[in-house]
Amino acid sequence: MGALEEGRFDPEVSDITVGEGAGGPAIGTMENAVRVLLMGLGEDSEREGLRKTPIRVAKAFREGTRGYRQKVEDIVQGAFFPEAGLDNGIGQAGGAGGMVVVRDINLFSYCESCLLPFSIKCHLGYVPSGQRVVGLSKLSRVADVFAKRLQEPQRLADEICQALQNSIRPAGVSVALQCWHIQFPEVLKCNMNLPRHPSRSSMQGWVHTSVCSSTGVFEQKKSSFSDDFHTLLQFSGANFGLSNAACSIHSWCPSRSLDVPESNGHMVRNNLLNGRIFSRPVVSHSSMVAAVASIILSLGEDPSRKELVGTPYRYVHWLMNFSRSNIDIRQNGFILNTINLHESSNGYIHRENEINSELNIPFCAQCEHHLLPFHGVVHIGYFHDEEKKDIDRSSLQAMVHFYGCKLQVQERLTRQIAEAVYSVLGRGVMVVVEANHICMISRGIEKVGSSTATIAVMGQFSTDITAKALFLEAISKVTAAVGP
Amino acid sequence: MGALEEGRFDPEVSDITVGEGAGGPAIGTMENAVRVLLMGLGEDSEREGLRKTPIRVAKAFREGTRGYRQKVEDIVQGAFFPEAGLDNGIGQAGGAGGMVVVRDINLFSYCESCLLPFSIKCHLGYVPSGQRVVGLSKLSRVADVFAKRLQEPQRLADEICQALQNSIRPAGVSVALQCWHIQFPEVLKCNMNLPRHPSRSSMQGWVHTSVCSSTGVFEQKKSSFSDDFHTLLQFSGANFGLSNAACSIHSWCPSRSLDVPESNGHMVRNNLLNGRIFSRPVVSHSSMVAAVASIILSLGEDPSRKELVGTPYRYVHWLMNFSRSNIDIRQNGFILNTINLHESSNGYIHRENEINSELNIPFCAQCEHHLLPFHGVVHIGYFHDEEKKDIDRSSLQAMVHFYGCKLQVQERLTRQIAEAVYSVLGRGVMVVVEANHICMISRGIEKVGSSTATIAVMGQFSTDITAKALFLEAISKVTAAVGP
Repeated sequence: MGALEEGRFDPEVSDITVGEGAGGPAIGTMENAVRVLLMGLGEDSEREGLRKTPIRVAKAFREGTRGYRQKVEDIVQGAFFPEAGLDNGIGQAGGAGGMVVVRDINLFSYCESCLLPFSIKCHLGYVPSGQRVVGLSKLSRVADVFAKRLQEPQRLADEICQALQNSIRPAGVSVALQCWHIQFPEVLKCNMNLPRHPSRSSMQGWVHTSVCSSTGVFEQKKSSFSDDFHTLLQFSGANFGLSNAACSIHSWCPSRSLDVPESNGHMVRNNLLNGRIFSRPVVSHSSMVAAVASIILSLGEDPSRKELVGTPYRYVHWLMNFSRSNIDIRQNGFILNTINLHESSNGYIHRENEINSELNIPFCAQCEHHLLPFHGVVHIGYFHDEEKKDIDRSSLQAMVHFYGCKLQVQERLTRQIAEAVYSVLGRGVMVVVEANHICMISRGIEKVGSSTATIAVMGQFSTDITAKALFLEAISKVTAAVGP
Repeated sequence: MGALEEGRFDPEVSDITVGEGAGGPAIGTMENAVRVLLMGLGEDSEREGLRKTPIRVAKAFREGTRGYRQKVEDIVQGAFFPEAGLDNGIGQAGGAGGMVVVRDINLFSYCESCLLPFSIKCHLGYVPSGQRVVGLSKLSRVADVFAKRLQEPQRLADEICQALQNSIRPAGVSVALQCWHIQFPEVLKCNMNLPRHPSRSSMQGWVHTSVCSSTGVFEQKKSSFSDDFHTLLQFSGANFGLSNAACSIHSWCPSRSLDVPESNGHMVRNNLLNGRIFSRPVVSHSSMVAAVASIILSLGEDPSRKELVGTPYRYVHWLMNFSRSNIDIRQNGFILNTINLHESSNGYIHRENEINSELNIPFCAQCEHHLLPFHGVVHIGYFHDEEKKDIDRSSLQAMVHFYGCKLQVQERLTRQIAEAVYSVLGRGVMVVVEANHICMISRGIEKVGSSTATIAVMGQFSTDITAKALFLEAISKVTAAVGP
């Protein structure tokens, strides 16, 4: 795996073919691995909705790591343009010393600690030399080559920086990244650090870090290039002042707080080497871990690389939060037996106290089509029952968590929550779910900023247009109050 | 061309091969046409920077109209999932009546009136029926098929709507589009309606229109689906209240105010039919118009289609704003002879009145690599000359317009403005250009929200780090004052 390691760190040699057949990474191997994971989650991988999930996930992993198979030279080649500079005595401009900055490039990468995508706002600067400049769009294309690998923020910044330095040969390069990583369900359960209203495009509730990397004139203490670069970033709202110093490389991924069993890495490696990955009749936790290791290998990476040793374990740990059996047992009983009805106190009360609303209940579900989270808020409106009892917010939160924390689709989640509330308070229920789908914004179409909304109406809400409008208005007031 | 016309309007038959060779649209024909345009602009199409522009533009046109060669069925096929609904008496949810909305999808399309890209925020809603839903990401993929054609907003909305209705067969579909079109230089010269600070991602100064299209339950007066859909859009900040009624389909593109010569369309068509496009020794205006018509034909469109008849004329008219000879003659004299020096009055004065700043001077240039506009603001800082004279803002605006309104690259624009100011006031000049590049955000990488910044420093600014910092701080204050 020495050659592979070299390939990773030398941007000049990035056409890696390890683990690839004619069609790129071994899709079939990855599909099998995903089936193991689905079985480990207690799911029937042949049920509708999951039948094509293995091929979808395999293709998405391949697409999301296409950077291993791209060459920086292919991108910048032919994109150099002669551009006059100035006599050095007079000043710095154009192709000699005239700093060029591209800000706010949205990228996505895969966290090497847990295999979940993370979101990046990338800012690049370079100082041309030799009377030539490079096409502006090439800077972000080069950055994307390294984002489309298993990464962690600082190495990503370093690799982009080195690749631009080596390919453009300018007087210096500076790379500044703002990165956001989704929280793990353990944290999400506390409801403290959840992503906020999805259409506000706020990244509140995400783990955030900022990293920088620079070469040449950006490193010189006497020059002001580095200061100028960061000032230009401030113009567009990015501040790298103190956060850079405060960030610790290995602590950023929330999965890093897990204790990975010492034996885990070796076990995985041995299983792989002996070809015994799928030989066990029962899908055990270690089979799932081995399956993830085989995915990493299929992508052309080395599962025994230091930073990746615990990754299969951590990814499986994440997935198991959405295990079917696990959560069914724990939460079903809770909902049926311990639901609390109480006098209405909080929430918006409308229509002569007939409709009660619980708004902005956060959730994080796992998209069953792509094995990626979708998260957002649930708004629940219901008519009071005759005894003027309400369900308390914590019961509704538990209900949302129960239906959210499994392999799901948003349409079903919306219906199931509505049905569950309706089964307790049967007059009328309306549920609106607003979400961001990581599968929509990080894969393929990369529709950053898009959000989804689904509605279910039951009982009185399904015939009473005014009631619907009143409840939507209640949501509108709260989301408007949050501000843009 | 009958079959072609049908293909355009029937989403079921969209695998158009008219005008295509094995590699898609006739790239070679388009390259030749772009060379004619470059010559018509008074440029040497063989000079560095322009040499590969024809192939770049041809490929971008092909990529930007790939929707002609995509089938909606290929996208939605296999993306249907069974999803239980509710008994209609109880309510609407899931696969039966549970409205699904995807908001804030960023798309780009080509204006059929002038061939410039326009920006779209697309919102889609549908009401599932028959106990099945479609994968959420497919909705935006289908929308993109129709965006990647020569379009105008209302037809785009109608085509997306019909295609979703025909392919998903739901109870109803609603499509709402917010569209933004860049102003033409005639308007830009007034400096009134220019795009603002590029990093604020504001669309102020663009021509805006909103359009809607709907089918099925969204059209029923008695149902509230349409109201609910628009309320959900309001949650994410999109308001379709009155703007929809106010918009007129054919007036939105600013090029529509041009008088297209009556004979123009016929001339183009005859030239095409007789194969005489490139036969003239001199690149006349009509040769340029014919060249653009040949591009439209190569894309698989019919240049004689009613909406496209004047398009070649309008596109050439737009391009000629960036003609080399034209503006050189007019503006060179102006700059050399009539520059106004006056007592300093406005602008930020720093360092004991040594540095004067003129900030946020708007510009719109034409990227010479892609024949697409880049636009933004120029900030100019300079040291007073000994006689305490300043250049007045209108002279600097004229200078920026002179260097901006031609085929350019941002690095050169920055240097040239610096050199021009330095030639008048020789102590020290610093220029910062902030821009959005349509080529970066509308083509290929579609990096929405990204912006560029370039710096040139001359004379005292190139050695005086404090002066640089002071000037950048002055910019910072003004951009901060504009607000996010």
